[in-house]
This record gives sequence, C-alpha cells and structure tokens, in this order.
Amino acid sequence: MNYEAFFEAELATLKDDGNYRIFAELERQAGAFPAAEQFVDDLRRPVTVWCSNDYLGMGQHPKVLAAMHETLDRCGAGAGGTRNISGTTHSHVLLEAELADLHGKEAALLFTSGYVSNWAALGTLGARLPGCVILSDALNHASMIEGIRHSRAEVQKFVHNSPDDLDRRLAALDPSRPKLVAFESVYSMDGDIAPIAEILDVCDAHGAMSYLDEVHGVGLYGARGGGIAEREGLMDRVTVIEGTLGKAFGVMGGYIAASAALCDFVRSFASGFIFTTALPPALAAGAAASIRHLKSSEIERTKHRDRVARVRRRLDAIGIPTLDNPSHIIPVMVGDAHKCKRISDWLLEHHGIYVQPINYPTVPVGTERLRLTPSPVHTDSDIDILVSALSEIWSQCELARRALAA
Amino acid sequence: MNYEAFFEAELATLKDDGNYRIFAELERQAGAFPAAEQFVDDLRRPVTVWCSNDYLGMGQHPKVLAAMHETLDRCGAGAGGTRNISGTTHSHVLLEAELADLHGKEAALLFTSGYVSNWAALGTLGARLPGCVILSDALNHASMIEGIRHSRAEVQKFVHNSPDDLDRRLAALDPSRPKLVAFESVYSMDGDIAPIAEILDVCDAHGAMSYLDEVHGVGLYGARGGGIAEREGLMDRVTVIEGTLGKAFGVMGGYIAASAALCDFVRSFASGFIFTTALPPALAAGAAASIRHLKSSEIERTKHRDRVARVRRRLDAIGIPTLDNPSHIIPVMVGDAHKCKRISDWLLEHHGIYVQPINYPTVPVGTERLRLTPSPVHTDSDIDILVSALSEIWSQCELARRALAA
Repeated sequence: MNYEAFFEAELATLKDDGNYRIFAELERQAGAFPAAEQFVDDLRRPVTVWCSNDYLGMGQHPKVLAAMHETLDRCGAGAGGTRNISGTTHSHVLLEAELADLHGKEAALLFTSGYVSNWAALGTLGARLPGCVILSDALNHASMIEGIRHSRAEVQKFVHNSPDDLDRRLAALDPSRPKLVAFESVYSMDGDIAPIAEILDVCDAHGAMSYLDEVHGVGLYGARGGGIAEREGLMDRVTVIEGTLGKAFGVMGGYIAASAALCDFVRSFASGFIFTTALPPALAAGAAASIRHLKSSEIERTKHRDRVARVRRRLDAIGIPTLDNPSHIIPVMVGDAHKCKRISDWLLEHHGIYVQPINYPTVPVGTERLRLTPSPVHTDSDIDILVSALSEIWSQCELARRALAA
Repeated sequence: MNYEAFFEAELATLKDDGNYRIFAELERQAGAFPAAEQFVDDLRRPVTVWCSNDYLGMGQHPKVLAAMHETLDRCGAGAGGTRNISGTTHSHVLLEAELADLHGKEAALLFTSGYVSNWAALGTLGARLPGCVILSDALNHASMIEGIRHSRAEVQKFVHNSPDDLDRRLAALDPSRPKLVAFESVYSMDGDIAPIAEILDVCDAHGAMSYLDEVHGVGLYGARGGGIAEREGLMDRVTVIEGTLGKAFGVMGGYIAASAALCDFVRSFASGFIFTTALPPALAAGAAASIRHLKSSEIERTKHRDRVARVRRRLDAIGIPTLDNPSHIIPVMVGDAHKCKRISDWLLEHHGIYVQPINYPTVPVGTERLRLTPSPVHTDSDIDILVSALSEIWSQCELARRALAA
C-alpha cells in the first residue's frame, strides 16, 4: 500500500469537489476586534471579522484579560496534570461552582472543550446506563454524534425539532429502559431554535433524561446568560445542560451542569475527562470572570440583538437571501461550494471582509453559505461596508435575490 | 428507571473498592514550583508537588509566561472559532512550523489536547484507510485505545514492547492491506521505554505505518527535546510522531508531526480537529516559546536526569520498592488501593508532600502505586524530606522493603 499516494488522491478529490479547506491566517487585535490582520505571503492586511463565535467580543474584555494575566503570574501556564493527578486548581473549583450557579444545578464538570464535553458525557452515559437508548435530533452537532456513536448504545434519530416524532419513538420503547434525549437549543448553521418546552414534556411523559447542548446559547440568552433554557424558564427541567467557554464567553473549554450524582458519575467514568491534562488555570479564571460579568451585565446582549436586527434588516432590504431564524446567526445562502468560496475570496480581497465559506461536511452539499455573526462590537460603518459589498458581488455574479416586500 | 439512584449506586461501588477519586484542590505558585498551596475547608496549607507532569517546570518559565502575556494583550483570550472559521491565528501557524522542525517532519497539526490528537488521528486513519488493521501495544494509553475503537478498524493488540509478537502478527496479515502500528516511547505508569528501532524494523519489513506517542518523551529526551526517537536517531523512520504541549512543555494542547499529505489528510477529515474551537493564541505562543527554549537549552534536561537519579538512589538505599526503568518516572509500588490512598493522605497531612495515589482504572488492580516525578526544580532538601517521610510511613505501616544490596 502506498500510503502517501492514497492521502494525496483523497485530498485531490476534496479539491475537485470544492471542499478543500484553506485556513485564513489571522491575528485578532485585542481591543479593536472585530478588526484583525490577515497574513498573506509575509504581508499583513487589515480585515474585519464577520464569522467569529466570540459572539459578544468577550475575548477582549478587560475583566477577562485581567483575570488571565493575574492567574498566569500567580499560578503559571499549564495545569501540569490530569484533574486527578495534580491538575485540579482552585480556579477550576471556582469555575465549576460558577457554572453550576449559572444553570441552577447542583454541580458542573469542566472538560477541555465543548467537543470533548459532548463526546465524553454522551459517550459515558450511553455506554454505562444498562440498555440505554439515545434519541438524537437529526441535526445534532458532530461532537454529539461521535459521542453517541462511541457509546455503542442503541440510537434513534428523531426528525429535527419534532416533539411529535420524538413522542412516537419514545412511546414505542420498553418503558423500563433508560432513555436519553439529546438535542441543541440553537443550531449553529441554520440558527433555528428548538421547541425546548415541548421536547421536555415528551421526555417527562416517557421518563427520559434530557441532554441540551446550549453552546450557541450560553452568555447570549436569558437574564444571566444561562441560555435559551434560562430565557424560557426551563433550566430546572433539563437533566443535563452542556455548554462551552469558547464562544460567547470568549475563552476555551466545555462543561456539563447537572445533578451532583450525575456529574460525579461522569467525572468518575469518562475516559475523555479522566485521562487528559486539565485546562490551564488562567483559562479557568478568564472564563469565570466572563461568566460573572455576563450574569449581571445586559449591555452586551442588548447591543448584540440590535446589531443582528440591523444586519438582517439591511440584507432583507436589498434581497440578499438569508435563512430566517429567531437567533443571532445569519446564514446568507449561496448553495454551491465553488461559488461560496469565490464570493468569500472576493469579499476579503476587495473589501477586507472576512467571512469563511461554509461547505460540506459542515453543511449539506447544495446549502453552502456565508454564516454571518454580527456582534456588539460591529459598528454601523462595518455594517454599511458589509451590505454594500454583498450587494455588489450579488450583482456581479448575477446571483438570485429574494423578492422584496412591496 | 431511577437515574439518580443508579448513579449513586455506581458511585457507592467505587467508594467500597477504594477507587473513588477525590481531587486535591491546589494552587501552584509560579516561580516557586514545586511549591503549591492546598485548599482544605477554606484553609490553605503549603505543599510540595511530587506528581506533576510539568516535568521540567516550564509552566513557570519566564519566556513562556512572557510570550503568553504578550499574546494575550495583542490578540485577546480565545481563538473565537474553529481552525477553519476564523480560529487560525499567526500563533498557530508558527507553532505548527516549530513542531514540524522539532521532529524533522514536513508538517505538524495541532489539537486541543494530547488525548484529542490520539483519538482524532488514530480514529481518522483507522476509519479512512480502506481495510486498515491497527496493531496496538497492549499497554497503550486510553486516548489511543478510544481512537482505535472509534475507528472501527480491525485491531490486534500485540504483547507490550514485543517486536517478535508484532512481527508474527504482521506476517499473518494480507500484505496488501494498510497496516498501522501504534505504540508509545515512554509508558507513563511503569516508565519503561519501547524498543523503537526493533519495532520500526518490523514495520518496514511488512510495509506498516508507525504511530509513536511521545507525550512523555518530548522536551525531555534528545538533543533538542524531540523525544526518545530523536535521542536514538529514529525520527525520520517514524511515520507519525504524536506529542503534547501539556507536560514537559508546560502549557496545553497536542499534535501530530508527519508528512505534509498525512497531516493535511487528518486536518481535512478528523471530526475532532474540524469541529472544535482552536487553542487560544496565547497558549500557542507559550508552547512555541517553551519548545524553542528547550531546543537549545540542555540545562533543564541535565538537571532533570540528576534529580531522578538522586531520588532513585536514595529510595534504593532504604529499600523502598520502586519499579526499575530507564526513564524519569519513579513508580513506588504499594499494590492496594486503600493503602495507597492512606499513605498519600498521610504524606500530605504530616509532611506537606503531595503525591496522588494511582489506582484502577489508571493502573491494574493490585499494582496501585505512588508515581513520583522528580523535576529540575526539586531541591536536595525536598528530596531529603520525601525520602525520610516515605521511610517513616513504610515502617509505621510495616510495608515490605526490598532486600538491600550487601
């Protein structure tokens, strides 16, 4: 077997299909974000980032940076070990308490990323609950799918955001079997929001645990940033809330919040939790500072909603086709991988607008898009430049526009 | 199904078996490490850490901290996105170049942790090479086992560190099938070292790729800290070298170094790489500073060897039973979970010595141990205190000592 030739052939196929990813090399400018510099052939050019998941700009918040600097000086860089072997610091303990409080749960458990928290928690619950069946929303994130697959539990996909289909499937199962319903609040690529209350009603009716991924909700929704479930007064009804520290909170890491026994169980049995070096204490301290700030400050969330509404209104006015949804994510639909990449390249080159093309496997073939994420730190002028650039390229490429309201 | 009762019963079983883990809550003191403080009931007490994987104390190195502070101020806290969607910064690109250079490979690819690098790289190679068979050392780390399991490739365990058994197994396989041999250089819990050259000879004879986990070797061995394979002049013969930024390099993260095509292949297909937020730029910059320093500085490695030899000599002199091995890891064998925990508690309480008991599932039942990791920053006095405390508790508990040389 010629391994190198195999790898090269597979990469060639990706390139032919327009799905080969070239990473933009950036440097965010703390204090000036969404301003960044792009590195191209040893040159730097200024760009405005329009596709970051640092949704509120908390990655440059003075409180977050101060907590990280201070902890770095006091405790050093890395944790130096797994949570069990010298890697649990005071910062980790404080952060877990902050997260449990955020979601009104008895306990929380940190992981090195949101991906790992989904993979490890679902993998462990699915594998260890005897005879467990996992009901998984058809559009769940890769990390949930991989965790469920890893558990080797029986899995049934239910129709996306359909409590009815979930109900039918749960009703057909042996009532004595453990059941776990895994879904998200905000789906990242379409920006649609789950009917959480209805799904929880169905879970309750059939004695199923609920596992809610709020990675695109925490920090952004709810009076204290607890997510969509907080906004809708439902946190106490969800068995496990999973979240991230790497998006609206602006740092890195993932977690679950749940009962003390459930968290302790995952802590005790999840390979992906046990056998990995703990997060650096400075990251834990930075994330805790971010969460604390967003528990009491509404300014960022209010401004965020305002920016999102403004971008939507402006794009609607000129018929740029977006997916309608009730969240902060604005998918501009292109529907072709090559075209999506060309538009993205043109925006970057001609207007310094950075919005990554989203292609397969992140979204299905034929639904390629530009995923815009307006943030409180995008100015009116940033928005003007974005909208006129999109209008220009839409005309140039003779792309379809939506019929405008009369 | 009463889920809470199930979790509680499982936890009760762990407790009965002595395998329930209680994490020590610490705060390392940058600049004074291995000094740390332990938090107990709102009190802090000074301890000396004897079980950290920050093997060289690089987590407090001024160059590492300076790079992190500087990058934090310049670029902010988190990366703000996946590597593909706004998360690739200049710091990531520089670090990958530094890592490729460290191992003399064409390319390197960063992951959020060593665990994820093993899981994602082995999972992807095993799943995507058609008909692949993975030959896995019987004592491989959990992250490798989970990655291999996840790939659903055919797997054969070979006898630990046995090129002969590997040879027999490879010879029995269809010569045309892709084969991948996964093993470690330094095994973390026993501290033994693989016969890398012999294993590579066998791989070459049968056209198998080799995948070498050097997480307990990088930074510590080889003229530039490239690991055991560098020390033995074998790096160019290994297909994939996997390493961590969270142990000797003192920060956090994992990586593979290999051919450009292989790294690009894993970059393009590994779910655990694609769908997760990138490492914070400050971590990437800190790790790069650490690697650069250890490429040219031998002081830390020389002092490390001296400290390890001193601790071994002193323990041998009083017959404390350790596993013999040629590495920097000194396992003090206890062989009982409850006893191991009691000794560890006593050392902490009476002498401020923190060494975590290592129990099942990290090591097999009956081989419970205290795993000592002397570092260049442990003083003669630290060693005196450790040795006399171990002697005292060995006498108190009437634990067996080794026969002393005449």
